[in-house]
Amino acid sequence: FNIAVLPGDGVGPEVALAAQRVLTCIGDIYGHRFEFSEHLIGGAAIDAVGEALPEETRTACLASDAVLLGAVGGPKWDDAPVRPEQGLLAIRKAMGLYANLRPLQVSPVLAHRSPLKKEIVEGVDLIVFRELTSGVYFGERTRTETQASDLCVYTVEEIERVARAAFQAAQQRRGKVTSVDKANVMETSRLWREVVTRIHAEEYPQITLEHALVDSMAMHLIRKPRDYDVILTENMFGDILSDEISVLGGSIGLLPSASLGADGPGLFEPIHGSAPDIAGQDLANPVGMVLSAAMMLRHSFELEDEADSIEAAVAAVLASGAVTADLGGPLGTVAATRAIVDAIR
Amino acid sequence: FNIAVLPGDGVGPEVALAAQRVLTCIGDIYGHRFEFSEHLIGGAAIDAVGEALPEETRTACLASDAVLLGAVGGPKWDDAPVRPEQGLLAIRKAMGLYANLRPLQVSPVLAHRSPLKKEIVEGVDLIVFRELTSGVYFGERTRTETQASDLCVYTVEEIERVARAAFQAAQQRRGKVTSVDKANVMETSRLWREVVTRIHAEEYPQITLEHALVDSMAMHLIRKPRDYDVILTENMFGDILSDEISVLGGSIGLLPSASLGADGPGLFEPIHGSAPDIAGQDLANPVGMVLSAAMMLRHSFELEDEADSIEAAVAAVLASGAVTADLGGPLGTVAATRAIVDAIR
Ligand SMILES: CC(C)[C@H](C(=O)O)[C@@H](O)C(=O)O
Ligand SMILES: CC(C)[C@H](C(=O)O)[C@@H](O)C(=O)O
Repeated sequence: FNIAVLPGDGVGPEVALAAQRVLTCIGDIYGHRFEFSEHLIGGAAIDAVGEALPEETRTACLASDAVLLGAVGGPKWDDAPVRPEQGLLAIRKAMGLYANLRPLQVSPVLAHRSPLKKEIVEGVDLIVFRELTSGVYFGERTRTETQASDLCVYTVEEIERVARAAFQAAQQRRGKVTSVDKANVMETSRLWREVVTRIHAEEYPQITLEHALVDSMAMHLIRKPRDYDVILTENMFGDILSDEISVLGGSIGLLPSASLGADGPGLFEPIHGSAPDIAGQDLANPVGMVLSAAMMLRHSFELEDEADSIEAAVAAVLASGAVTADLGGPLGTVAATRAIVDAIR
Repeated sequence: FNIAVLPGDGVGPEVALAAQRVLTCIGDIYGHRFEFSEHLIGGAAIDAVGEALPEETRTACLASDAVLLGAVGGPKWDDAPVRPEQGLLAIRKAMGLYANLRPLQVSPVLAHRSPLKKEIVEGVDLIVFRELTSGVYFGERTRTETQASDLCVYTVEEIERVARAAFQAAQQRRGKVTSVDKANVMETSRLWREVVTRIHAEEYPQITLEHALVDSMAMHLIRKPRDYDVILTENMFGDILSDEISVLGGSIGLLPSASLGADGPGLFEPIHGSAPDIAGQDLANPVGMVLSAAMMLRHSFELEDEADSIEAAVAAVLASGAVTADLGGPLGTVAATRAIVDAIR
């Protein structure tokens, strides 16, 4: 398996290395060969070659079997002519990664670390399907002396394909989809609601579908997060809501994501950002990145057992307390990664 | 004082009545005369005259000394050609109410009802300044067979005036403003950040200013809500974030808001919506609306003592347990209002 690794900025390189170590161990045990090739993205790419997504990186990603990404961005590039984040947006678009899956399960051993009461977060098991290649992130922008604008556009087809992905996931889970929009104000949200309602009626009538407004959803997700199974939403709402719920499990450092397209390679990255304040200090939690690698094994390579093995090892390590400082543990990134590797063996 | 009352939909009429009762009591005690005139808005207006903001209502609001609004909207009008919410957006725009103030103090007696741990929410005291008459709520919308769009526009002047309002509030409080945007992606956010930074440097250098991205803010507000004093943000981010934090105090039914313009009357409404599921059943919590009336006394009429008197009565009633079902209390809307009136006397 030919894997393009984009370490990126901040803690990105440290966690990307952790994922490679874990995958190498899985390869040894199960007899697979994972070939890693590193490429520039984000601020690191701007510093080296002046653009956030070099052509070489784009080509390598498209030719790979899957992409692992660390993180991009940081205050260092605040005034740069190009922003590191443009590299991330560009690679998502170039690879056609329209469905961003962000699963959240609250581990019973970590529920006490949540800012929410234990009885509220215990047993939470949901997944966000965030549309990732359209909306206000990719619309036309304008800027004059006196004003600025951003355009949010959604086409029927863009909504249909991510809706189908969410309904299909719900069939394998508890059979419920909550679609989030702001249909009482936005035109794109009205279209969103219509299309999701039609796809449901025509193709997935056995799934329970409910609609929620993004503002009240921001509330419900904290009051009764256990009520949700699959949450389907557009790009920006998905960005905000999935970060909001990332605190439920005690640390954003735990959470993985998978970004998938119609076919072609997927991209796998932790939810957390580049965390420049702790970069290079062996402090980053490798778990979000390692679980992203497990999602890669499952979604891109159909290696279920191998993915299960990583997830079981992570669960064991979290239970044992062999964790990083964000979870109150004594370990650094390297040692926490080694604990996961040892648990796999 | 000539007060235009817009009861609106769902629980709106019940809570609007509660505010009038409390104000009448204040008038009796302090020797003021509050004249109330009721006008149609939202779904109620659509049903009666076919539009969400009748001309009569607009004229009456502009001619009033202040406006009290209950709530608008409900599933009944989901397929109506006009949406009830358009009435609310139109009156905000017509009155030029660019600054929406949403204070949040977590009452020590209710901290245990929060979904968050007591030690996290205890002592929270913040206020959101949400820009209310621009952004994607008011931009051009398009719709074709195959796609829809919403345009988000901000002008320098729109950002300046709400930023000044937030900095001025911070001067009276703990001296800190957190400005929220998505400057790593959106052009309007970049302009937002530039303008806020300039107004700060030129006019309010003694205030502490920090910038946060909306996604990480959605996280921080749950992890360490006590860190915030004044939160300044654009229309849609303000909608989502203020609803998110509304759960911190135990019930959204407690929270008031004030919408102010450059001059002319202000509009005062609770944060909660029309709650059609409990409408007409004497179940709504009147506190959010009553505290909105207190904000009206303070901001529009400069009646500080009278506003203090209402706020003290509400605090006493909350401590006594004479509250509605959303707070686990035994009272209906009418009885809870009477408890507040009795406490004022
Ligand atoms: C870095 C940024 C552009 C990105 C986004 O908003 O999509 C990040 O916040 C994320 O959620 O993956
Ligand atoms: C009803 C709706 C249009 C409104 C808004 O989003 O502004 C409401 O959610 C609010 O926050 O006042």
